[in-house]
Formats: sequence, structure tokens, C-alpha cells
Amino acid sequence: MRISIEVTMTYRFPEPNTVFFAIEAADYDGQTIEQQRMMLGEATVDRIAGDSGVGQRIWARVPGNDMELYYTATIDVTRPAIPLVGLEAMPLHRLPAEVVPYLRPSRYCQSDKFIAFVNKRFGHLQGGAKIAAMRDWIEAELSYVPGSSDADTNVLETFAGRQGVCRDYAHLFCTMARAAQIPARAVAAYGADVVPPDFHAVAEVWLGDAWHLVDPTGMCQADGLAVVAVGRDAYDIAFMESQAPAELITQIVNVARV
Amino acid sequence: MRISIEVTMTYRFPEPNTVFFAIEAADYDGQTIEQQRMMLGEATVDRIAGDSGVGQRIWARVPGNDMELYYTATIDVTRPAIPLVGLEAMPLHRLPAEVVPYLRPSRYCQSDKFIAFVNKRFGHLQGGAKIAAMRDWIEAELSYVPGSSDADTNVLETFAGRQGVCRDYAHLFCTMARAAQIPARAVAAYGADVVPPDFHAVAEVWLGDAWHLVDPTGMCQADGLAVVAVGRDAYDIAFMESQAPAELITQIVNVARV
Amino acid sequence: MRISIEVTMTYRFPEPNTVFFAIEAADYDGQTIEQQRMMLGEATVDRIAGDSGVGQRIWARVPGNDMELYYTATIDVTRPAIPLVGLEAMPLHRLPAEVVPYLRPSRYCQSDKFIAFVNKRFGHLQGGAKIAAMRDWIEAELSYVPGSSDADTNVLETFAGRQGVCRDYAHLFCTMARAAQIPARAVAAYGADVVPPDFHAVAEVWLGDAWHLVDPTGMCQADGLAVVAVGRDAYDIAFMESQAPAELITQIVNVARV
Amino acid sequence: MRISIEVTMTYRFPEPNTVFFAIEAADYDGQTIEQQRMMLGEATVDRIAGDSGVGQRIWARVPGNDMELYYTATIDVTRPAIPLVGLEAMPLHRLPAEVVPYLRPSRYCQSDKFIAFVNKRFGHLQGGAKIAAMRDWIEAELSYVPGSSDADTNVLETFAGRQGVCRDYAHLFCTMARAAQIPARAVAAYGADVVPPDFHAVAEVWLGDAWHLVDPTGMCQADGLAVVAVGRDAYDIAFMESQAPAELITQIVNVARV
Repeated sequence: MRISIEVTMTYRFPEPNTVFFAIEAADYDGQTIEQQRMMLGEATVDRIAGDSGVGQRIWARVPGNDMELYYTATIDVTRPAIPLVGLEAMPLHRLPAEVVPYLRPSRYCQSDKFIAFVNKRFGHLQGGAKIAAMRDWIEAELSYVPGSSDADTNVLETFAGRQGVCRDYAHLFCTMARAAQIPARAVAAYGADVVPPDFHAVAEVWLGDAWHLVDPTGMCQADGLAVVAVGRDAYDIAFMESQAPAELITQIVNVARV
Repeated sequence: MRISIEVTMTYRFPEPNTVFFAIEAADYDGQTIEQQRMMLGEATVDRIAGDSGVGQRIWARVPGNDMELYYTATIDVTRPAIPLVGLEAMPLHRLPAEVVPYLRPSRYCQSDKFIAFVNKRFGHLQGGAKIAAMRDWIEAELSYVPGSSDADTNVLETFAGRQGVCRDYAHLFCTMARAAQIPARAVAAYGADVVPPDFHAVAEVWLGDAWHLVDPTGMCQADGLAVVAVGRDAYDIAFMESQAPAELITQIVNVARV
Repeated sequence: MRISIEVTMTYRFPEPNTVFFAIEAADYDGQTIEQQRMMLGEATVDRIAGDSGVGQRIWARVPGNDMELYYTATIDVTRPAIPLVGLEAMPLHRLPAEVVPYLRPSRYCQSDKFIAFVNKRFGHLQGGAKIAAMRDWIEAELSYVPGSSDADTNVLETFAGRQGVCRDYAHLFCTMARAAQIPARAVAAYGADVVPPDFHAVAEVWLGDAWHLVDPTGMCQADGLAVVAVGRDAYDIAFMESQAPAELITQIVNVARV
Repeated sequence: MRISIEVTMTYRFPEPNTVFFAIEAADYDGQTIEQQRMMLGEATVDRIAGDSGVGQRIWARVPGNDMELYYTATIDVTRPAIPLVGLEAMPLHRLPAEVVPYLRPSRYCQSDKFIAFVNKRFGHLQGGAKIAAMRDWIEAELSYVPGSSDADTNVLETFAGRQGVCRDYAHLFCTMARAAQIPARAVAAYGADVVPPDFHAVAEVWLGDAWHLVDPTGMCQADGLAVVAVGRDAYDIAFMESQAPAELITQIVNVARV
């Protein structure tokens, strides 16, 4: 599937600042960048590899005024949408070293608190069947309610509140998988089927000997997602991060099948 | 049902201290104190009414050494075990003023986080039927695991962890009831059917025009409980509270039907 | 000092609802209501006593549409602004029963976590001198930054973040006082010196044998505050509380010396 | 400085289990392993690289009974104890990709909550001088109190409580450095000057173009520490991690200068 992406944003920076962007689709397994262009106003740009070597992040040194960000890309997504049910969980002692940190809790995903629940509800299942059951459970139990969470909401609150947006779904999925000792990580992505079009957060889970994309909201399949960045949770994959004041004036995200 | 209670505790206080005890059964609706005796070593004792006027608490000014606490009582519990299912929830605007604070979240019971869950799971039920369904859900979903929680565990953690002891069951029950706008409070009590015998924590819920005892652990019925104290959550009903160091050396609690 | 108050609010209720208001100045020690009028659109109104018997709260049963709230009052504040430094802390065992619950942590005020800090920083001081030092410390250490907190912010976050609005100042003050075993509670009030005019949150501390008003933001003195409601923390004294959707369309608060 | 290490532990595993150990000193900058030996009873052992490629971790598949762990090593620590004050902070846009994740909050280190405090208290300082001031502040403000924290204690609680053990000191240090946009990570280490001898947790901070060891407790200097593992916080560097039940029966840690 080919996906076209177009992002237009205007930021207001009251003072010169160094900000971090994760906006560009990654050169990543299962997707090919056909064309891609990023314009960041008058910012000075440095690129570094993203977390776990996935994609690139941008440090932008911005002068203190308004900045227009314009990003356009066409991505050929070649990965198939594989049913997870049949996949096996890799035994812990065979996990690659770089996958192991994704077994652990993180800022928003206190997976250590969910072990008993996950054992109780999903303990009779294994590997991909367990993951599929978790994903289905989350889609069934949570309500997608824009505005029901904010950047501070953690997974304990999401689990109690039973509502959220894509980041909260991804957090709960990663949390449950980790509590079952299956590695999982948060993924920033563009999805052709996200309505209304927006930045999207999904997850990856390590089954068999590879990462597999999962959208706990049920909006997208693996073959309809262009991956941008991965990390332990929403903090690691934020599309923009700045300590100094920064105001988002406009944001338009368009994603379409082409 | 007549209940006999015998409590023997030894505390070590490295220095003189003022500590707070909620140990004595209350002179309370549905129970009569037939005999009761409290000895608090060499402590100087002041009694005050408990929270919401239920029972008495003791401020004990203790010298800095070991102190033996001995409490014995016989309580005639005359309240019936009423099925809650048939009771109605009182409309909010008719709740007595002193009941209203028990609609709100507290230190360990962040009921404001549970509104969507409670609406989703129990929204089709009303009043006593809703409360009974919550109680049954808690007993079914939680595992009673001694040592699985501590004095710091809050209800978000209990809900995620799906295990706890009596205080955690009471917290989750109060939390769910409050999230459904039905007043609920934590209750310290002695229960003849608690195995092994120990201080017990249950809950009261306001249905019809009265408080009704509920044991979310399922161990006791309202007619087998001698109430000691009530409050918003475990912090308010602790059997002993001290800021200065205090070590519990021995504790024996015996409760029996007589 | 005479204070005039005028509040105009418009709420949008998409459906019929029962909401809770704490808007009216209280008939309370040190203040006299010279005139007071409350209009709540087409709502059906029931009044009950506020927490700890201070003031009145309103249950308003509102039809499902826009509602205008209009409140006007003139309050004669006769309490003096007493220097706290010279007051003594009442020994714990002599505290009135109704004051004791204000020694304990609450939803937003985890005072149990602050005991070591308070001992370390303020342990050499007693009673009113300790309270005055805490108040000064808070005013010096916190920055008043509108928008830096929300309804979910607790005192651990405020203490780390060192910024907030009036509710956060009041929370930190109550937390520190309680950690030092001095009763303290949150207070909703109107203050003639609040700039810009708005609902205000301050605190009361129990010293000598009475509650004393304290404004940790430093904006107001006790003789310039008209008390509305008291409670354990911001949740108990919210000017409006509703579980069902309610949108605040306009809000104008005017408070002035007259 | 040459450091000798000897660790003897006995674990009880009621059932077969896969557990994770970070016990062995790392082959790492500034330290040379002269000799090292690890025995893990009857466990089947798999080694993988540790987080960020530092050292090795062990997956041990253990049979369901008691297991003795015995570890002995001699490490030649050749790194000097460099004064941090004179070092510069690297500009954000020049940070190596693998260092960037250590700018962000983690499970126990909610550094996003501390930005205003850090700006207020340390904003006038830069780079190494800022870091040195933070370290001194932590040593001065916190009290080292064994038993005052547990595995669940996060940095918000530590900051309020002003006490803790080495993990809490390391958390607060990492948190403050990250809040000032200086990368910092938690480090498991053996320290010759830890009294009584025990596993130790310290931190590393990225200044100039390298990681520098810092012991916020003040017990050790960089030239007296043998590094075992690094990670975002205590969860990542735990010396043993197991989801299934595991009981530590005995533990003896000896570390000495030789």
C-alpha cells in the first residue's frame, strides 16, 4: 500500500530554542520511502538516529519567532498484516539484548502493577494468542474519547478510566504485554485509516523473532501504517518536544492511500 | 449475634509519644456493647468522638518504653443482614449534609478516575442492585493475597493488580460506589468470620436513608460485624497512628461468636 | 472591611443534571452577610450545610440547556488579621474531635510523604512560628503561574514543580501543616485583593483554640477574605461539581472593597 | 585502585523460573577485569549485553529449589576522579543518538515535573558547575535512612520525603540533571567505600563528550567504583529481577580495596 503524508504546522517560539522533532517516516522494515521532504522554516537542523536505531529525529535550533514546518512524503508499505494468533513468544533467555529493555515499565506504563491482572485474565493463553486477546480486550473495554486524557495521563489512570486516545491505547497494550513478559514498545506512525487524520500512536510487540505492529485502537492494520519512531512510551515518541515555551498555532495532517 | 473480642498488643516506643488508637467497638446502630474494657499500660488516655461521630478514638500519651494494650469486649450485634439489591439510591439533592463528603475521592480512593469504567460496567443498574453487582464483581475479580499490598497502596494500583487484603477490597468498593455517586465510607470492624482473626476493614454504603455494612471480601455479613470506626479510607480508620517511631512487638486478635 | 461580590456565570448542560455549587459566602465567624442573592436560572435548588458545618452548598437540578448563575453579596469582614507567630499549637490530645480529621492526608495532599522534610526544615520551630515559616517558605519557593496546574495536580507534583495557582499553594500549606501534626484545611473564599478577580483558595490552620485564615499566595490577609466553604482539599471546596457534562461558557467574578 | 568483590547469595525458587541477574562487573571504560568468576548453582545461563551495551546480564533458568550464587572478582579501576565543576554541557544538537534517551523521564524519575524547580534553584549555573551543585544539594538535603524507601518509591516521593537509600539518591540526581536537559542515567556498581558493604546505585552524567560517574550519596568517588550496569533508573539496573516468586535467603556482599 502506498501512503501519502502531508503535514503543515506553525509553531510560535517566543525565544530562540532547541526543539526535538519526530515527524519523518523511518527507513524501516516493511516500508520504503519513495519521496520525502522536510522544511523547518529558518531552523538549523541536525539529524540523529531515533531510539533503537529506528528512523531519524531532528534537533532544530529555532530563532525566536514563528516557524512553519512542512513535511511531505510518499511511503510504500510492503509489510503484510500478519495474524498474530499463530506466532510464538520467544523464550526470555533467547531475546536479543536490544529487545530486553522493552520488557520493563516506563514513565507512563507501570507494567509492574499489572502482573496479577494479566495472569488472571490472559494466563491461560500463550504468545500471539495472548497478545491478540489483550488487543481485543483493550479495543472492547476502552472508549476512544478525544480530550479524555492529557500528556500526563498514565496507564493506571487509563485502566481505571476506560477511555483515552491512541497514546492511551498504546500504553495499555504495551503495559499488558510487558506484564506478561512479552516485549512491547510504543510507535509513532501515520495511518491511512485514522479518522480524522492525525499523528497516530500504535505499538510493536516482539513475537517469533521480529517486531510486529499492533494498533490497539483497531483503526489500522500493519499494512496501513508508516512508522516514524519507537520508544518505551509516548514520551519517547512525541512528535515535538521542547522544554522552553512553544505554542502550536496550526496543525494539519493529511494521510491518504495513493 | 453476640461477638466476643480480645486484643493483646505490645508496642515499643523508643521515646515519649502521643499516639492515636481506634480499637474499641462503637456504641452504634445495630450493636450494643455488653461489656468492654481497655487497658493501655501506663499511658494517659483522652477519648474523643470518632469521624462522623461514630465510636470513640483514644489519644494515648505514652512514656518511652514498652506498652501493653489489652482490650476485651462482648458486643451484641442486632442489625440484620439486609439484601442490598432491593434498596434504592437516594437522589443526590436529598442526601443529608453529613453524608455528602463520602461522595468524594480521598487519599487512597481516587474515585474521580473511575467514572467511565463504572458507567460502562454498571451503568445499566440502579441503587442497591448496582451496589450488589459492584460488590460481587470485586469479590470475583480480586484475589485475597496477604502481603500483596502495603500502607501506601492506592486504589489505582489495587484495580490494576487485582489483589489485596481487606483494606484494598474496601477501597475499591468505596471508589466504585462514589464514582457512581452513591456515598460510601471505610469501616474498621471486628468480624466473627475473619480467618485468621484480625482487625478487619469493610465498607458502608448509603442506600435508602441509612448506612449499610458491606464486606467486599465476602468474609462477613452485616450481622457478624462489630463496628469500630468510619472514615473516608484506610488512613481515617487505622487502628493505630503515630508519627514518631513505634514498633509493634506482638499482636493477638481473637474474635468469636458467643 | 466590607467586601462586595458579584459573580456571573453561564453553564451549558447538554442534558438534565444534578450539580453541586459552593458559591455563597458563609455565615461564619468573623464575617457577616449584609445582603446576598443567588439566582440559578431555572434550576430547582436544595441547600445543605457545607463540610464541617461551614456555609451552605447547593444541589441544583438543572434542565438540559444553558443556565445563568448570578450571585451578588455584601459581606462585612470583622475578623482581624492576627499575626500567627505568637500562637501556640494545641497539644494533640486536646484537639476537638471535629478538628482531628484535618490532621490527615487527602486526595491531593499526601501529607504522609512530607514528614521528614517538614521535620528537617521546620522542626526547630513550634506552633505559630512554624506555621508562619511554612507560609513564608511557600510564598518564596513557589511561582504563581496561571495554567501551570490542572484539576489533577497533586501536592507531590506541586512541590517538585515549584509553581501553581492558589489551589496548589493551599494544598502545599495544608500538607506541610498536617505533616507537622497541626490541623489545616482548604478554604474557598473571595478576596478583595485577588488580581485579577477570581474565585480564591486559601487555608485555615488550627492554632490556639481556633481556626485561622492563611493565604499562602500572600495576596490576601484574613481581614480581606470572605469564606465560602472548607474541606480537606480542592475537591471538597470546588465552586462547581458535576459528573455529567457541563460546559462553562462565561465567568465573571468581581470582588471589591466597599 | 584495585577492588576485590565477593558476593554470596542463596535464593529459594518454589518453581522452575527464568530470572535476570546484573551482578558481574562490566568490561567498561576506566576499569579492567583482572579476574572474575560467577557460579549460579544448577542454573542454565545465557549472557546478553546490558542496556546501552554496558556489561553483561544473565538470564538464568533455574530449577525449582534453592540456588546458591557465588561471584568473585578483582577489578582494576583506572579512571580518575575528575572534578565535574569545570566540564561543559554538550549542546543538545550535538548529543550522540544513544545518549538522547537519557534526557527523558522514566518509571521512577518523573523529571518532567522538576523543570521549574531546577530552573529556579540551579538556573544560574551551567554544565559541570550545575551538576556539582545539584549533587551537593542532594547530599545536603537528603538523609540516608535504610528502610525509608522500597522498590515502589518514586522520585516525587523521595523529593518530598527527603530521605532514602542509594537508589533514591541516584533517582533524584538523574531527575534533576534531566530536568536541566543534561543526560543522566542510573548505574549499578560496587563501591569500596560503601558502609556497610552492599550493592550500590550511583549515576552517570554526560558532560563534555563522555559519561562521568557521580555518587550522590557522597560515599564513593569515581575512582572507587566498579560499574556493573546502566539504565534509565533502578528498574533497569536491578541486580535480580523475577516475575515468579523468588525468596532471598542469604546475601553477603564484600567489597574491599586490595
